[in-house]
Amino acid sequence: MPQLLIAAARRGKIAFEHGDILVVAQKIVSKSESSAARLLKIKPSPKARTLAKSLNKDPRLIEIILRESRRIVRSDHVLIVETRHGLICANAGVDQSNVPGNDVVTLLPRNPDRSARHLAAALNKLTRKRVAVIISDTFGRPWRLGLMNVAIGASGVPALLDLRGTRDRDGKPLHATILAVADELAAAAGLVMGKADGTPAVIIRGYQFQPTQDFAARIIRPAGEDLFR
Amino acid sequence: MPQLLIAAARRGKIAFEHGDILVVAQKIVSKSESSAARLLKIKPSPKARTLAKSLNKDPRLIEIILRESRRIVRSDHVLIVETRHGLICANAGVDQSNVPGNDVVTLLPRNPDRSARHLAAALNKLTRKRVAVIISDTFGRPWRLGLMNVAIGASGVPALLDLRGTRDRDGKPLHATILAVADELAAAAGLVMGKADGTPAVIIRGYQFQPTQDFAARIIRPAGEDLFR
Repeated sequence: MPQLLIAAARRGKIAFEHGDILVVAQKIVSKSESSAARLLKIKPSPKARTLAKSLNKDPRLIEIILRESRRIVRSDHVLIVETRHGLICANAGVDQSNVPGNDVVTLLPRNPDRSARHLAAALNKLTRKRVAVIISDTFGRPWRLGLMNVAIGASGVPALLDLRGTRDRDGKPLHATILAVADELAAAAGLVMGKADGTPAVIIRGYQFQPTQDFAARIIRPAGEDLFR
Repeated sequence: MPQLLIAAARRGKIAFEHGDILVVAQKIVSKSESSAARLLKIKPSPKARTLAKSLNKDPRLIEIILRESRRIVRSDHVLIVETRHGLICANAGVDQSNVPGNDVVTLLPRNPDRSARHLAAALNKLTRKRVAVIISDTFGRPWRLGLMNVAIGASGVPALLDLRGTRDRDGKPLHATILAVADELAAAAGLVMGKADGTPAVIIRGYQFQPTQDFAARIIRPAGEDLFR
């Protein structure tokens, strides 16, 4: 995949530069890692059958979603789950769109931070530029309508930027100010990725940041700390 | 405020163009509308006193937050409420940062969509350019750490972009694909706004969109539809 991305950038007359952030849609990462399942090969469990009936879905699809999940958060109309990574999203990220035919579904990458790290390392080697990588997916969220592109994997870029201890313009300390930078970068990329467009990779240039060892799994809020639940 | 924003843009050697999106931090909108309260003038209710004690906060501040709220969502460590607008956020957006002194706190604008509409109209008149406006604030969210900049008011730009009925690259219909465009635009602006920086206005140029009558309150998910709760 790194070669394909560099070739695609070249066709767009773009050469990677130090500090570029490449935001890649989960879908192409999953495809390149063969993180997928075939419906024909799935034998749904009784639990999947029951759930599929109430949701009016293919029981094999539900079975795959359950295998990708730690727990079901909600199951009317849509199945909202906590994935094995701890991400909370619809259908555990299992998706039939932008995949040819009706048999194959893509799964989320096994370890999106590792995928981001490997891709960044390969890009840095091939281009000799310090390129950061974010792997994104579009998630719904509570309280607000619409999907947003969020960071499920990251390498080289801050996931969370901790401004605690800094002061505002009037010298007052800023409490509780940790910015979800990787999610904001993913969201910015989401504006040009579209969804049906098939623009699965976006380069963000000019964002000022310190290279870090940070990773996207750190964004997942520990359940015990979740004041919003 | 429109004149101040145009002057600030001019100092940055930027003239507004058709299709520009101006993202403005809630804080300066609230200041320009005098949407603020003075702690000295507040007499806290018994409920505010009790809550303040458990949160170790100024009871007058809690009183102001309660007046701005429809209901309390959660109240340990931080007070998460549903504001009178229906927004769910910490402290109802009542904020002491970037305000001189210790007496004045800012409130969210009364009607952020109206504020955006008025600002867009004034900018369009003064610049003779079709400029869209988003009013943003940084909110926490369930399940994921870190604050994100979101759109609390909007004018001239889509709040939600409905792609249902469109098809993916393989011709399959895209279900459930409504993108939270205004929030993604606010998030993109958040990357350069910082928090302590005092960069309260950002121009996004080059984003392709159809001018609309859409507004940010539409992003608020009706409670009955909230599958994530």
